[in-house]
Amino acid sequence: MSGSHLPTDPVTLARDLLRCPSVTPADGGAQALLAGVLEGMGFETVHLPFGPAEAPTPNLYARLGTGHPTLCFAGHTDVVPPGEGWAHDPFAAVVQDGRLYGRGIADMKGGVACFVAAVARRLEQGPLKGSISLLITGDEEGPAHFGTKPVIEWLAEREELPDFCLLGEPTNPEALGDVIKIGRRGSMNAVVTVQGVQGHVAYPHLADNPVHRLLAAFSELTARELDAGSKWFDPSSLQVTSIDVGNPATNVIPAQAIGRLNIRFNDLHTGAELTAWIEDVVRRHAPSAEVQVSISGEAFLTQPGEAVTCLSDAVRHVTGRTPRLDTGGGTSDARFISRYCAVAEFGLVGATMHKRDEHVGLETLEDLTRIYLAFMEGYGL
Amino acid sequence: MSGSHLPTDPVTLARDLLRCPSVTPADGGAQALLAGVLEGMGFETVHLPFGPAEAPTPNLYARLGTGHPTLCFAGHTDVVPPGEGWAHDPFAAVVQDGRLYGRGIADMKGGVACFVAAVARRLEQGPLKGSISLLITGDEEGPAHFGTKPVIEWLAEREELPDFCLLGEPTNPEALGDVIKIGRRGSMNAVVTVQGVQGHVAYPHLADNPVHRLLAAFSELTARELDAGSKWFDPSSLQVTSIDVGNPATNVIPAQAIGRLNIRFNDLHTGAELTAWIEDVVRRHAPSAEVQVSISGEAFLTQPGEAVTCLSDAVRHVTGRTPRLDTGGGTSDARFISRYCAVAEFGLVGATMHKRDEHVGLETLEDLTRIYLAFMEGYGL
Ligand SMILES: [Zn+2]
Ligand SMILES: [Zn+2]
Repeated sequence: MSGSHLPTDPVTLARDLLRCPSVTPADGGAQALLAGVLEGMGFETVHLPFGPAEAPTPNLYARLGTGHPTLCFAGHTDVVPPGEGWAHDPFAAVVQDGRLYGRGIADMKGGVACFVAAVARRLEQGPLKGSISLLITGDEEGPAHFGTKPVIEWLAEREELPDFCLLGEPTNPEALGDVIKIGRRGSMNAVVTVQGVQGHVAYPHLADNPVHRLLAAFSELTARELDAGSKWFDPSSLQVTSIDVGNPATNVIPAQAIGRLNIRFNDLHTGAELTAWIEDVVRRHAPSAEVQVSISGEAFLTQPGEAVTCLSDAVRHVTGRTPRLDTGGGTSDARFISRYCAVAEFGLVGATMHKRDEHVGLETLEDLTRIYLAFMEGYGL
Repeated sequence: MSGSHLPTDPVTLARDLLRCPSVTPADGGAQALLAGVLEGMGFETVHLPFGPAEAPTPNLYARLGTGHPTLCFAGHTDVVPPGEGWAHDPFAAVVQDGRLYGRGIADMKGGVACFVAAVARRLEQGPLKGSISLLITGDEEGPAHFGTKPVIEWLAEREELPDFCLLGEPTNPEALGDVIKIGRRGSMNAVVTVQGVQGHVAYPHLADNPVHRLLAAFSELTARELDAGSKWFDPSSLQVTSIDVGNPATNVIPAQAIGRLNIRFNDLHTGAELTAWIEDVVRRHAPSAEVQVSISGEAFLTQPGEAVTCLSDAVRHVTGRTPRLDTGGGTSDARFISRYCAVAEFGLVGATMHKRDEHVGLETLEDLTRIYLAFMEGYGL
């Protein structure tokens, strides 16, 4: 394979990917495009559509090499809707003043393109010592039920789990080199429905006010400081997101009250323990309340070790900056991967992600490509 | 004036009134009908339409005699909507098995008819020693802004306030003779609007959750036992009637939360004092919250004295039962009257008021007429 045929320029692939209108759940041709590029580089590719047969979630898995170590790059080709008011067509991949504009360039088609370009540059230097795979889903921005989760399970079943997984989310708030994410807080939601006995406010002894029971329960829940943070994590946080009664009558004690809360929790907690606590508090104040809990993801942490050190060194090598190892912010597909193998996250600058006029600087794409290449070299690939 | 022309039968007038479809704010001819009957008995009548000129509230004031004592009977001709599922047309005034059916028969066209019949019977005995008036509004079941309130003010301006006012609301829960109301608790509503700073649940330090502030304030408000009741009153009661956020997003800290509460308060409190307390508690937890308070009525009490004793004696004379002197239940137009003169309430049985198939027994109408007559005699009219 001649170097001249390898896609060593991240901008070309990024622009091709941006032109695929892949707003979740649409794919817009993105994964077929990517599969073609990877096959041209020697990768074996397999499409792994999971979910309902009439509308499966597109997923792509590609692998090159059979040696160790094994590195998997995880990412997604779907994007959030562009919204209104863009200066340029959000799917035209316009370059202006050294910036590449397009929905998904930061989150995270640009990261995918940089990784592919880095592999191409690595291959120009000679054959891999280890092996490289890509796990690309088309549903990270949506419900994510049939994306990364079943693909990593599929890899586990085939005993093909990598030694390390690098997720290409835009982890840098301001500038390339800010942050490597080595964990994420867990997230859970609870919906508490309290049934009371409706009545007239003038006869409270004949009624049972469900709002008072919900107030008492939620006050106790919000009053607790869950923790003060841990070595790698911010403090856990419980936020009541809504309370809804919908009673327009000023003289009526309502029959029902519904409260909703979310907890972002660190490695000092588990979803099961927090669920038991919520149920206990609610039941004490409202014995017949219905409590529905859904755990979006447990907290996880990849203890800084060889791979994270290599990644940090690569970032410093290219940018001159030492990235902060961080676990803040929202959830990502790393919550699925972390159950099976060590995972860290590093990608582009997220300042414009999910916003109008999403863009990255062309030099940032080049720098991220160089970081990914330096990491491969340092990691022994 | 010959007795044979006097409307001594409460059932006839009650049926005529029931056939006027006077669902608030409609009058359905009820007040003209009543005015005609009263004029036939020698009353001077005056229609007192208050409120917007294009849709004034109908009110009727009628007076007979100029001597003392002066007794005013207060009541209303408007009714609440009938709703669905009646066994008989709610405006057909059907008599079946000794019961008279119709919307408003208990609350309170029946009471009006009984009082008029009692006056007729009194007039059969000879001329009045004192004087009798009727203050009838067409908006008791509605907002009541332009009903009893401006009429009693009009009477005060003319220095024509009665010595005692008898309000004919259906005070008896189960059977005639249960309850004379000598006061009512006050009622006030508060709407608390807390503005916060919207944000993502993963970054609570960048947001300010208005639900948490509202929870803290309302928990403190509901935790206080306002009092343990007073000599004539049940304990005061604060009820949260609604909390509304309306945030469907599980990962968003909302920008606003609205809470609503009602307080029914006894003579140990005033609306102003409770308003100050609510504002203080809310401001401590949510300094920028908006607190809108409306006081529907202050608590009032007519200390049992000559008139109430006469009324109680009359009830016992006819029913053989000693009525309980009570201040429970909702508000009534007595809250407007009490500012100007002593007022007590006694009327029909309220068991079916505001319900489907509202009805009273024919013998109950006869008994209430006899009670009102015995009261007039005992009170020196
Ligand atoms: Zn993403
Ligand atoms: Zn009434």
